[in-house]
Amino acid sequence: MRLPYDGTKLDAILDRAGVDLVLATSKENIQYLTGGYRFIFFSHKDAIGLNRYLPALGIPRGRPEKAFYVGNPMEIWQQDGEPLWVPEVNNASWSGLTTAAEAAAFIRQRGLSRGTIALEHAFFPADAFAVFRQALPEAKLLEATPLLEELRAVKRPDELALLREASDGVVESMRAVMQGTPPGTTGREICERLRQEETRRGLNFEYLLVAIGPSFIRAPSEAKWERGRILSLDSGGNKHGYIGDLARMAVMGKATPLMRDLLAEVDAVQMAARKAVRAGAPGGGVFEAALAEQARCPHAKEMVFLAHGMGLVQHEAPHLTGTGFVPYPGTHERRPLEAGMVLSIETEAKNPEVGYIKLEDTIVATRDGWEALGDAARDWTEVDG
Amino acid sequence: MRLPYDGTKLDAILDRAGVDLVLATSKENIQYLTGGYRFIFFSHKDAIGLNRYLPALGIPRGRPEKAFYVGNPMEIWQQDGEPLWVPEVNNASWSGLTTAAEAAAFIRQRGLSRGTIALEHAFFPADAFAVFRQALPEAKLLEATPLLEELRAVKRPDELALLREASDGVVESMRAVMQGTPPGTTGREICERLRQEETRRGLNFEYLLVAIGPSFIRAPSEAKWERGRILSLDSGGNKHGYIGDLARMAVMGKATPLMRDLLAEVDAVQMAARKAVRAGAPGGGVFEAALAEQARCPHAKEMVFLAHGMGLVQHEAPHLTGTGFVPYPGTHERRPLEAGMVLSIETEAKNPEVGYIKLEDTIVATRDGWEALGDAARDWTEVDG
Repeated sequence: MRLPYDGTKLDAILDRAGVDLVLATSKENIQYLTGGYRFIFFSHKDAIGLNRYLPALGIPRGRPEKAFYVGNPMEIWQQDGEPLWVPEVNNASWSGLTTAAEAAAFIRQRGLSRGTIALEHAFFPADAFAVFRQALPEAKLLEATPLLEELRAVKRPDELALLREASDGVVESMRAVMQGTPPGTTGREICERLRQEETRRGLNFEYLLVAIGPSFIRAPSEAKWERGRILSLDSGGNKHGYIGDLARMAVMGKATPLMRDLLAEVDAVQMAARKAVRAGAPGGGVFEAALAEQARCPHAKEMVFLAHGMGLVQHEAPHLTGTGFVPYPGTHERRPLEAGMVLSIETEAKNPEVGYIKLEDTIVATRDGWEALGDAARDWTEVDG
Repeated sequence: MRLPYDGTKLDAILDRAGVDLVLATSKENIQYLTGGYRFIFFSHKDAIGLNRYLPALGIPRGRPEKAFYVGNPMEIWQQDGEPLWVPEVNNASWSGLTTAAEAAAFIRQRGLSRGTIALEHAFFPADAFAVFRQALPEAKLLEATPLLEELRAVKRPDELALLREASDGVVESMRAVMQGTPPGTTGREICERLRQEETRRGLNFEYLLVAIGPSFIRAPSEAKWERGRILSLDSGGNKHGYIGDLARMAVMGKATPLMRDLLAEVDAVQMAARKAVRAGAPGGGVFEAALAEQARCPHAKEMVFLAHGMGLVQHEAPHLTGTGFVPYPGTHERRPLEAGMVLSIETEAKNPEVGYIKLEDTIVATRDGWEALGDAARDWTEVDG
């Protein structure tokens, strides 16, 4: 059976975890396991009526021919043009409760009512879960998220192409906004300008964190970008779900020597981190290299380095360290990186005189080293003001 | 205490349901209860790391001064510019599990560990719910969704202004796409054009259902819009969360007499439905009037009428009937409509020769009758091809 994902790898992951069937309910994992299908009507939200949209895709270990999908009646139109590989499809659900009941019925039909089922509990609503549990009281339930994350960790060429398109689009949008924004424009207006630019480039705008020097506040606000002030843009925009997430710097006027020094130090840490990326190298080495470089920086105490995997989800595998803002499992601290894994590396410097300075880059591990996506405009973009 | 919602109404709703504290966890209800706050970083998605973003806002009945909010550390920046009215804010959560634990702790501190708590179960993830339940084993849990929907059912003038802006923007975008699209353009390309137009007008594009005659398939596909064919656009786009949801028709060339007849019949049903809208009139009267008009139509058997409340959520209160695609509770079938309630009314006709014809309008109940939002371009838009 021809599958849009690595069926052998999924079976091995499920086998190791003792899972009989994995039930995906997040949009990201359903998109991945269907080979790109995401129902357009609910792509941007979930709430409808007194409940919500909840799709479900169940795959029994080693028996993809017994996979099933539960969706909404309107999906029939989209599936007409994008047929699912999944053999049994039930597009009858207008709520999470129906989805849970139908998924449980499929699982029972497959003789797995006492089996071990892996669920995405963070993407399985509590009311739907109660229905599911009542329908399958004897099933053993495990967490599916780390298993599916592991499946997704090495990106295929078509996924890398989408990540490249998203990354290029985000950086080009930032450059357009930096160069086209008149003095006195607020952070809120800059955010809307970036949303327009990313949309124009075919991306789905996700967010902009914007800091206007010398403040460290990074939310779009009424603060104005004026002559002599720096601008930090950190934006996420996705191409068909694949996230471009980069940060670039501009200044209205000429960068001061202190600004140049700070960005050079941030850049040095970023470059040190890149050089530790290579298929076969342990993930933790990226942090070691970056932190060693940071320790050599004159402004080391103002700086923070972070790295995380990325793809369809922010901060997905490989997880390079057990530390960080988000509670990471650190699965790849000692494990080797593989070609096709994608990292977001980010270094910030908070300087009380200048403001918030940051570079964030997207790095793909290759057999011989690394490749950067959206790697333009990393120096100060100096703008007339 | 000055609240951004009707505190007296909320207290009455909670009192009637015997609820001591309502805990909102959906973006829509948190936006409503905070008076417009929606954290930008996770506005368009939820997944991060191995879990997800989950905000929570708890309000004890009659004691808004004891309300609390649980959010993400990055929200501090946004709250700096948009302070929450909520007295106690804990921005420490990077996952639904933390949110659930912190919300439960707040509830316990308020002496409500044995109280009756209303939750949005469809927007409370199963793993977070397990944490919450374990922390408050003696609490009685009820469903919050219908209570908060009732609170939101009558729109304030500022909400109506956003709905008007969204509705006008959707219709203007449709007209621009209809008039600017060359022959041979696919449904997929038309979808992207409409996304661009809505974004340009400051909206958040949600979806487009597009049918190209004579097919009834309504998903963006490779089908081409050519001379002599009709085009049905049915799109949702929101302005700061408030949904514009309208459907309009175009034809490349001149509309045939049959096309004119069909749209006139659809329009007649829509106009009959409007005339039944008025503060004080029972919600079920809208269906009665529309269905009576439909029965008089020559193509009655090809037609379907539907009406539903709308605002921050598709198909919210008032629910005018117990029937329909989505399982409606029919709460307003006999209850009187109130001024400021907003209805989406929609009539479709599926004609095998012409294709899929639909008008969807947005109607606000007023003291004396009704007002339509985005009420332009309801006739055939005839385009040179």
